[in-house]
Amino acid sequence: MRAELVAVGTELLLGQIADTNGRWMSERLAAIGVDVLHHQVVGDNLDRVVETLRLAAARADVVIVGGGLGPTQDDLTRDAIAVLMDAPLVRHPEIEALLREKFAGFSARPMPENNLRQADVPEGARTITPIRGTAPGLAADLPGGVRLYAVPGVPGEMVEMMEGTILPELVALTGGGVIASRILRLTGMGESAVAEVLADLYEGSANPTVAYLASMGEVKVRLTAKATSEDRAEALLAPLAAEVRRRLGDVVFTEADESLEACVLRLLRAAGLTLACAESLTGGGVGARLTSVPGSSASFLGSAVVYTPQAKRTVLGVSAATLEGPGVVSEPCAREMAAGARLLFGSGIALALTGAAGPAPHGGAEPGTVWIAFDGGDVTHARGFRVSGERSRVRRWAEQAGLDLVRRHLEGRPLPVSDTTV
Amino acid sequence: MRAELVAVGTELLLGQIADTNGRWMSERLAAIGVDVLHHQVVGDNLDRVVETLRLAAARADVVIVGGGLGPTQDDLTRDAIAVLMDAPLVRHPEIEALLREKFAGFSARPMPENNLRQADVPEGARTITPIRGTAPGLAADLPGGVRLYAVPGVPGEMVEMMEGTILPELVALTGGGVIASRILRLTGMGESAVAEVLADLYEGSANPTVAYLASMGEVKVRLTAKATSEDRAEALLAPLAAEVRRRLGDVVFTEADESLEACVLRLLRAAGLTLACAESLTGGGVGARLTSVPGSSASFLGSAVVYTPQAKRTVLGVSAATLEGPGVVSEPCAREMAAGARLLFGSGIALALTGAAGPAPHGGAEPGTVWIAFDGGDVTHARGFRVSGERSRVRRWAEQAGLDLVRRHLEGRPLPVSDTTV
Repeated sequence: MRAELVAVGTELLLGQIADTNGRWMSERLAAIGVDVLHHQVVGDNLDRVVETLRLAAARADVVIVGGGLGPTQDDLTRDAIAVLMDAPLVRHPEIEALLREKFAGFSARPMPENNLRQADVPEGARTITPIRGTAPGLAADLPGGVRLYAVPGVPGEMVEMMEGTILPELVALTGGGVIASRILRLTGMGESAVAEVLADLYEGSANPTVAYLASMGEVKVRLTAKATSEDRAEALLAPLAAEVRRRLGDVVFTEADESLEACVLRLLRAAGLTLACAESLTGGGVGARLTSVPGSSASFLGSAVVYTPQAKRTVLGVSAATLEGPGVVSEPCAREMAAGARLLFGSGIALALTGAAGPAPHGGAEPGTVWIAFDGGDVTHARGFRVSGERSRVRRWAEQAGLDLVRRHLEGRPLPVSDTTV
Repeated sequence: MRAELVAVGTELLLGQIADTNGRWMSERLAAIGVDVLHHQVVGDNLDRVVETLRLAAARADVVIVGGGLGPTQDDLTRDAIAVLMDAPLVRHPEIEALLREKFAGFSARPMPENNLRQADVPEGARTITPIRGTAPGLAADLPGGVRLYAVPGVPGEMVEMMEGTILPELVALTGGGVIASRILRLTGMGESAVAEVLADLYEGSANPTVAYLASMGEVKVRLTAKATSEDRAEALLAPLAAEVRRRLGDVVFTEADESLEACVLRLLRAAGLTLACAESLTGGGVGARLTSVPGSSASFLGSAVVYTPQAKRTVLGVSAATLEGPGVVSEPCAREMAAGARLLFGSGIALALTGAAGPAPHGGAEPGTVWIAFDGGDVTHARGFRVSGERSRVRRWAEQAGLDLVRRHLEGRPLPVSDTTV
């Protein structure tokens, strides 16, 4: 089955927003074995939207158009679909009632009448009822057997309709029943190494499919199965997930798509332990990530961001001998920072990060030099390594390595030792 | 002048990456008055790339194709352009020499011969010499007077060729000489309010153009002028920038596109002052942003991330009376945190942030409640407000408001008082 994606919106052509929906939809369609051969982006102009949809319908089995379903005069996707279907727009009473009800729920003002444009449906098209938003999605069968879907451009509303209606329908059209996915996430192994280890699974994958995506010091491996029931889909996924995990080993920190910070917090809760940090290099980045997770205060006590030698000394008690000897970017400094943070916050575990983020050398160390240390009272550990690339990459990889050190300790995995370049 | 953008790469159609180049190029083209009417994305398939480029060339005056210029067999943009030009690919000796020189610079291994594919140029096309990367860009005049450019898909290499060659050539083609831009950034005013204040400037804008872009608690206003010289472009921009600034007032923190954190650090350096933070709500986010700027250690000493009442008490000396009375989300707590951070780090200025990020209430406060405080020794200030929306938005807007409080103090601007909802 071939699909084509069309994004409608002049704001995309003016560069005010990027077409992130295209990436999301493409990934999900690939996962269920649908080939996406083209994306098109077009502005809020009826003739051009019609022409774009016609081209898409001429070369694909399924066309998914995003955007242009709102209440304003610029929202023309409904009209364009009506032209393609050679059908009039008809006001849909149930959608009208839904719009009035939703509007009354968030405003005391009477609903502007133009909102009712969203209840206009090309005759013969089905609607997809919105949950979060107000604009319904549309599904229509065009002449030539082409299935056309229209979804709102707002990402959350698009995702809701794709997951709730469109992807399951496409699975059914391609002979499947349900789709199930499992996402393994890993850190500490590069994308090309992952690609090599999984090459045969990836190349040969049809059902389940294997895909991977690298970003920000992590690789996500998505496994997707189509089957006639959830149980059967799971039965397809489980052995593949086990095989992927067997090959990748303990760099995998989750099979449930949780973030590394959420994983660490979950393990801390399970162990009944608390964590504090001492951050120089990362400047608060580890604390910010941990506290992005709701409920993190149950396990995360705080972080001493100590960006000067003086602050390392007075706030964390790093010794003058260390500051004047090996310096702020060194194993002793990282170890003393961790010990100091554990004492300051009274935590069970402390993690410290120091280094030279670049672009200039810092504390006698070359840009990219990182030292992280872990202090759990009876167990302490330190690791030094180099990260290539720019400042933000050095900081991000240090955060990843630091959080992963805590994760490995809590899971009883081997702790990585000092090494060379990441 | 009408332009069309084509992105080539199967990785885009698999959803492995998003087409962020499209947004960047569109914004820059709009700024010089070029209308972008379509984007297309196509995979690494010669027939489909040719067909896509033909369609683009049939409806635009300028086609810019990104990606497919690398050394592998999947990189087919050169071949597709040769088909469109009905010209053979010819090895370009200067590009070949450049490739050999670049390769020798970063590898001791002999250069794989397939790298020389990048020196193959459709006869009659010009090359755009790469600075960062190895793949040259291409410029060709197609039958029918259509100008076609090809650039690498790597964002940095694309930007280099757009800014260095393509945008200036398009300005020249449209009768201009040079392009100059000025970007004003502001925080503390919503996008719709900015749009209203600048409506007539935006609607009527031709040269200079006015555009705006909102994200993450900020609005960027870009002014772009075309003229026969830098001086004349500046002469067009200066009065418009002054008018925009006059209308928007002191919410504007820069006319030089610097980040809010870089602005604060610049003002601190100029004043010879140091800053420390006390972060509860933001968990280290303010520290992470300040330290993302190289050289920040000259003015930023550190941040006490105190995520529990106990840590607020022991690390910063917040009083038991405050913790037990008004609680952790209160004006007294924010003020005592700021005073404590100033003392702990010995800084000239301290900024404190506390609040309920949500989704659950925290410390007796509703989600979205924020208190920030500033302590400069002789001047102290506190502000409470509510932020609507999810956890990440509450935290981001608190960071913005906190950094802006320091900015306003250092610039001698009025300090905002407590208010209701952002």
